[in-house]
Amino acid sequence: MKATPIICFYFFVFGLYNFSVAQENIGRKLEALRSPEIAADNTVTFNFFAPKAQEVAVIGNWPMSEASNDNKLIMHKNADGIWTAKQEQLGSDLFLYNFLVDGVRIADPLNVYQIRDVSNVFNYFITNGGQAELYKTKVVLHGTLTKVWYKSSINSAERRMTVYIPPSSGSAKKSYPVLYLLHGMGGDEEAWPTLGRVSQIMDNLIASGRIEPMIVVMPNGHSSNSAAPGYSEKGEYAVNFRTADVGSGDMESNFQEIIKFVEKTYPVKKGKKNRAIAGLSMGGSHSLFIAAANPNTFDYVGLFSAAYRLNDKQGIPVYDNIDQNLLQQKKYGYALYWIGMGKTDFLYKTGEDYRKKLDDLGLKYTYHESEGGHTWSNWRDYLIQFSSLLFK
Amino acid sequence: MKATPIICFYFFVFGLYNFSVAQENIGRKLEALRSPEIAADNTVTFNFFAPKAQEVAVIGNWPMSEASNDNKLIMHKNADGIWTAKQEQLGSDLFLYNFLVDGVRIADPLNVYQIRDVSNVFNYFITNGGQAELYKTKVVLHGTLTKVWYKSSINSAERRMTVYIPPSSGSAKKSYPVLYLLHGMGGDEEAWPTLGRVSQIMDNLIASGRIEPMIVVMPNGHSSNSAAPGYSEKGEYAVNFRTADVGSGDMESNFQEIIKFVEKTYPVKKGKKNRAIAGLSMGGSHSLFIAAANPNTFDYVGLFSAAYRLNDKQGIPVYDNIDQNLLQQKKYGYALYWIGMGKTDFLYKTGEDYRKKLDDLGLKYTYHESEGGHTWSNWRDYLIQFSSLLFK
Repeated sequence: MKATPIICFYFFVFGLYNFSVAQENIGRKLEALRSPEIAADNTVTFNFFAPKAQEVAVIGNWPMSEASNDNKLIMHKNADGIWTAKQEQLGSDLFLYNFLVDGVRIADPLNVYQIRDVSNVFNYFITNGGQAELYKTKVVLHGTLTKVWYKSSINSAERRMTVYIPPSSGSAKKSYPVLYLLHGMGGDEEAWPTLGRVSQIMDNLIASGRIEPMIVVMPNGHSSNSAAPGYSEKGEYAVNFRTADVGSGDMESNFQEIIKFVEKTYPVKKGKKNRAIAGLSMGGSHSLFIAAANPNTFDYVGLFSAAYRLNDKQGIPVYDNIDQNLLQQKKYGYALYWIGMGKTDFLYKTGEDYRKKLDDLGLKYTYHESEGGHTWSNWRDYLIQFSSLLFK
Repeated sequence: MKATPIICFYFFVFGLYNFSVAQENIGRKLEALRSPEIAADNTVTFNFFAPKAQEVAVIGNWPMSEASNDNKLIMHKNADGIWTAKQEQLGSDLFLYNFLVDGVRIADPLNVYQIRDVSNVFNYFITNGGQAELYKTKVVLHGTLTKVWYKSSINSAERRMTVYIPPSSGSAKKSYPVLYLLHGMGGDEEAWPTLGRVSQIMDNLIASGRIEPMIVVMPNGHSSNSAAPGYSEKGEYAVNFRTADVGSGDMESNFQEIIKFVEKTYPVKKGKKNRAIAGLSMGGSHSLFIAAANPNTFDYVGLFSAAYRLNDKQGIPVYDNIDQNLLQQKKYGYALYWIGMGKTDFLYKTGEDYRKKLDDLGLKYTYHESEGGHTWSNWRDYLIQFSSLLFK
């Protein structure tokens, strides 16, 4: 049978006409219930209507403040069956959370803002003031965000990438330098645009003059997938979220095809001094090896909490010749080699080893050590810091 | 405080390393649990781990098959605390659903594929065979999907639109005709790309030669919002999902600025014979009035389950002069005036009245009456039918 309307469902799918009818089993008085509520002082109240639930908590990516149990923020039920918890003042950031209802993790049904991260869907919210203002859409000129496919020699397939093009001011035909921005092992071409807030950050930094207008190219870095789950010919449910291609060298070895496509398709300034490459975690490793294997291609390299992968996967040329390639890169020269790492990152030690290698080979770099670990909170911050240093 | 990592949360946010650890309170044996499971014969099994829940059901936009209670598909719990329900064979379509857990509507936590529709988030799945194959990403050339902002005279703001650009085959510089495709009252510039599956439908119809390659322009049709919730400067939580602008005439009166922007920005074939306009519900009403007020602009008009709005909002020129404008449209001529309506649509009667008006004024049209009502199932189908008739 085909999808046909059901009266009660109709109203909550399509109905603005009679919205209160929509909320089956949730009375009219709850219509105004919202979650989360972010107060001006960045305290955050979570609300959830579930009269029959026995135990409800918020789980989120920040340290919980109340008397907590395993880093959960315990919610309390009132006489109307509404569970509530108030998080004390949070800093300025984008935060992820879910509810844990009698042991089952679910999305907050009152918060339509969600981000898929690997095979989980998290609600998010953004607090007020400080750096998080850069993560919000503001009244500034907006760039264009494009999902585009390019013909790749990897599996002879079309592959998908996300491209940010800065707002054009005025009618003159402009061209721009390019930042190639790579995701981590758990990501895809949707990761930087969603969790990384690339459009909002770029729009706001360009508007305030803190960065040069630049194109940002965010390809899919997994050679075993042509696109993010839901956008590949594998179908919605055939996708294996664990990818076996990590360390195969396919992405690193074939990166020139991406540059070629971008320089053919977009209004790009060519040449080394107009190219930067950066990535987080696995994407940091990709950036390292791509820049070294193409030693006269990028004037700017950014390694964000990079997974260095220096000692495994021998026998793949793009990995095997790393010392010689780095020495070539040194010979040709570069404007900036930027390394960001969190103090508690589980990759901290490999980062230390890599910096020692750079010291031994005589390659200069700028090192930024932050609080925290392997988090999008750090990666958004590293993007802001790194992009502010480019193309000047 | 800033977002900092928590070990247990870390694993399920970023962890592919140790995925089973991620699922707090859900044992290792559940790692393979999937929901929904779509069998080759389009029976669909839903699974949900919730040992303490007392009553769980699936609510979806199709007629439920089992002994049902208020159109719910009742789920049953096994000894491991896993609730299951099997939906008997479904037709070929994209279906929406949620779970109802002890009276609370939530998203299926095992299904990462979700679509926001107005202020609700639904899970979706696509069955196999038939027309729904057009809704899936296939191994064909893919067009580009772009989110772009244009300067509007509505509130002197930048406004956001989604643009589909067909795949370019070969290196020759191509130009394309344009379909302007408008959403309904509950939608925005994300509605046609998500619920309407525009990229997939266009890619597949172009690949099979059923339609001419065309650019599809999907603007935001609410003058009181510059962009979809989450993409506007109003902020994530200041958005009122009910829009007061319906019937203001702002969108209809200012549509030429959209055409002008599109023809300046994209590789477009100009002139009436290369322009089509269509929309669903409120967007059908917009299409009707925009085409009539610009009577020599579009050779193709499509009204999908249109809300006609013929008798209200007097005093707004774009509405007041409808008969004269339609007669002008008749005088200039057009290639196709296509009307689609479902037999059980709550707007059926106003559609009947409007067809009578066209008959009285002597404007020819093609009328398609389908089963069902005011549903995305119909609108995807109407798009396929209508686009197959364009630019030939």
